[in-house]
Amino acid sequence: MAKKENNQENTAFQKVVSHAKEYGFVFPSSEIYDGLAAVYDYGSNGVELKNNLKEFWWKAMTLMHSNIVGVDSSIFMHPTVWKASGHVDSFSDPLIDNKDSKKRYRADQLLEDKAEEYEKAGETDKASALLTKMNQLLEAEDLQGVHDLILEENITCPVSGTANWTDVRQFNLMFSTQTGAVADESSTIYLRPETAQGIFVNFLNVQKTARQKVPFGIAQIGKAFRNEIVARQFIFRMREFEQMEMQFFVRPGTEMEWYEQWKEKRIRWHKILGTPEASLRFHDHEKLAHYANAACDIEFQFPFGFKEVEGIHSRTDFDLKSHQEFSKKKQQYFDPEVSQNYIPYVIETSIGADRLFLLSLCSAYTEQEVGEGDKKKTRIFLKFNPALAPVKAAVLPLVKKDGLPEKAMELVDDLKYDMKVVYEEQAAIGKRYTRQDLIGTPFCITVDHQTLEDNTVTIRERDTTDQFRMDISEVRSWLLERVSMNNLLRQL
Amino acid sequence: MAKKENNQENTAFQKVVSHAKEYGFVFPSSEIYDGLAAVYDYGSNGVELKNNLKEFWWKAMTLMHSNIVGVDSSIFMHPTVWKASGHVDSFSDPLIDNKDSKKRYRADQLLEDKAEEYEKAGETDKASALLTKMNQLLEAEDLQGVHDLILEENITCPVSGTANWTDVRQFNLMFSTQTGAVADESSTIYLRPETAQGIFVNFLNVQKTARQKVPFGIAQIGKAFRNEIVARQFIFRMREFEQMEMQFFVRPGTEMEWYEQWKEKRIRWHKILGTPEASLRFHDHEKLAHYANAACDIEFQFPFGFKEVEGIHSRTDFDLKSHQEFSKKKQQYFDPEVSQNYIPYVIETSIGADRLFLLSLCSAYTEQEVGEGDKKKTRIFLKFNPALAPVKAAVLPLVKKDGLPEKAMELVDDLKYDMKVVYEEQAAIGKRYTRQDLIGTPFCITVDHQTLEDNTVTIRERDTTDQFRMDISEVRSWLLERVSMNNLLRQL
Repeated sequence: MAKKENNQENTAFQKVVSHAKEYGFVFPSSEIYDGLAAVYDYGSNGVELKNNLKEFWWKAMTLMHSNIVGVDSSIFMHPTVWKASGHVDSFSDPLIDNKDSKKRYRADQLLEDKAEEYEKAGETDKASALLTKMNQLLEAEDLQGVHDLILEENITCPVSGTANWTDVRQFNLMFSTQTGAVADESSTIYLRPETAQGIFVNFLNVQKTARQKVPFGIAQIGKAFRNEIVARQFIFRMREFEQMEMQFFVRPGTEMEWYEQWKEKRIRWHKILGTPEASLRFHDHEKLAHYANAACDIEFQFPFGFKEVEGIHSRTDFDLKSHQEFSKKKQQYFDPEVSQNYIPYVIETSIGADRLFLLSLCSAYTEQEVGEGDKKKTRIFLKFNPALAPVKAAVLPLVKKDGLPEKAMELVDDLKYDMKVVYEEQAAIGKRYTRQDLIGTPFCITVDHQTLEDNTVTIRERDTTDQFRMDISEVRSWLLERVSMNNLLRQL
Repeated sequence: MAKKENNQENTAFQKVVSHAKEYGFVFPSSEIYDGLAAVYDYGSNGVELKNNLKEFWWKAMTLMHSNIVGVDSSIFMHPTVWKASGHVDSFSDPLIDNKDSKKRYRADQLLEDKAEEYEKAGETDKASALLTKMNQLLEAEDLQGVHDLILEENITCPVSGTANWTDVRQFNLMFSTQTGAVADESSTIYLRPETAQGIFVNFLNVQKTARQKVPFGIAQIGKAFRNEIVARQFIFRMREFEQMEMQFFVRPGTEMEWYEQWKEKRIRWHKILGTPEASLRFHDHEKLAHYANAACDIEFQFPFGFKEVEGIHSRTDFDLKSHQEFSKKKQQYFDPEVSQNYIPYVIETSIGADRLFLLSLCSAYTEQEVGEGDKKKTRIFLKFNPALAPVKAAVLPLVKKDGLPEKAMELVDDLKYDMKVVYEEQAAIGKRYTRQDLIGTPFCITVDHQTLEDNTVTIRERDTTDQFRMDISEVRSWLLERVSMNNLLRQL
């Protein structure tokens, strides 16, 4: 069931997706076996970009805040964790099958698509009435009502074209597996559907060993897994994905101040990353999750519309309290300032590393008309923030002789300890510049015959294509000032 | 079934394990729920140490070699990948149950333990005869023979004390799960038991997009999963673990040269990390895996003996050839230098990130007798290479008044962009030094009253406990020279 997007949006997005494959950013997983649905691999440029994004997040959290420390908890957790968190009982999607096509759909998405149709036809009232009704039914867990609403709206299966629907049922999104080899000891465990619980169950261990006092935060980067029925939009919604989550523990009653502060901090972080302000917005949750007393998303304007990249949630003491109940282990903190024991409240910032990656690609992808008349053409380049670019600089000997390659390699050897650089001697220099534009390398450095005479090289900037000469001895520090992650951190 | 280690070894290892828990390096997973067998979480100091180890490996591979690039492939892969790799058919352990205790064991480990008993009793011949016979039976897949050998050796269950054994059966070590919600579309997929296959299936995609020519390598860091029956020795053998693997693709016939070169390079890397030469050794595989034509381990002398940390394997063209057969997609490379199409041969270097972590902890843990007479005591510190230490420097105001905290915070603000620093004002200065020793912080910087007069601070070195004064304006560059990862890379 393809979402009905207009063609222009589709084209813009398709260009980014093709570019990602063509230039080593993202490949379909197991592609030689025709892929695995909703799973992707990162190529040589993709892994560098992703690592840089993760590094910027990690350092912004743990280096810039003396009261935020990291953890790295496992994907496998004790199964009771997911009872306490509510995932076993309620982490599910309402599914419905068409009896003719045998295709399965998310009931809420069928209704949302219908509302979008109304919207596009100018019937805004009908659209919002439908969504309101749907949300009421879902909240009341009235699956029969959802089913009836689908029939009332005359929604048909895009494949069979019929309205011959089964009942709506809840389907849990957690992947499960069996651990242990002994039959009577073996037990079902889950692949974590979020990384947050790995922070909550370690709350007291970390607080004590890291000698932290409330307010303080715990940051974590790691994989999570959801058995999504309808996986859409490339790496936007995958079955295996990576989260960067920070849980900030505060004194009860102060959570709204901290919620506002973290909203500010996080949107600021996105802007420093280089995402245009106009492409970002806050979106308050209309319906709060069972654990939250305030929640919003940071949305980015993808080619397919404004969508969530990060969530900021005031989770109250729901998780720690629940773990206290289920584990029978006190999850309290003694606050010396108020001489009180309490279960801290939590502000969560949770960002999808893969979505941030997609944001970065979409935001960086630039087409520029250059030249005049017959020589008019489209220049494509990826306008990454230099600190995030997979390759920081390309060193290019103008020709493959006269000692230029050797001179260029000397420069590579000078730079390679501090940044990712590549050396390229194949093809005309213009073509080599284009190759670097296509992977977003901010600077090309050309070694030519003049270099042998006066020890200067040409620096060519990606965004402006401006060129100028510089003494070779200054190149390293000049580059470091421009490509170092520290520049971004200092702006926070 | 605890391995019979002598008490001294046990004690040394237990100290490291307790220290890891106590000081925020490693916690049992889901500890508040009494843990999950053979799964662990990394605490605030642990995650920093692990990240530093991963960074050093990643940079040594990808920054230091222009012909090695990275990938980050998914944990979920197409199930046929594991048929092609041989894991579906033969990645299994021979298991046996005791009918009285209902306990399950690895048959080979029961026999190995018996051999160790002979060894300890001085019956070396008996021990080696037993191991030889066991290996022959396992190689011939003669499970009945293995069963009979256990009976012949009068091996009894440590729990029930009886020899009332079941047959020996093969048990596959891969975790499986179901993907997709639609019954007729759903399929069994596996959690990858190694990261190598994610490199092999992306071989051509990476070679082309990264514009690489044979010889070249692909590096990857990622999680893998094995349903180990008997998980032993803390984080040494876990069900969920992290691998750092590099597959180096070479022209057939040249693999032995490259195998030797990578043995050299990898042992050198370990030494630069600071692991004492005497604690490292090569161990050639006696029995080669079905895909290998040469293989060795780099072993480290853990408190429980010399054990594998890294494997270096000449894997021939086994994997690519097998993927070509199963996927029907050519996995050939055209080598312009010899004008020939071929499937490259592969040299693999594969290191367990968690084992390297454990190596680092064991190698760093130091007890030193200090003082005289009544004041004699044991000083414990973690002697990490400064570039690997979780915290690079602690900034300590001598007292919590007279403007010293403010002065100290200024220094923290100067340093925090470049390295992980902590600020501590609680407790006597000696106690604060001790705390930093226990987590391996290489340098403590004390701000005292003299600082206010002449702008100097005291630097205290972890390993020597030597102290000396330095102008505050020189601290940053002095530290950077000592704690930067670049220092290690420049030694490679």
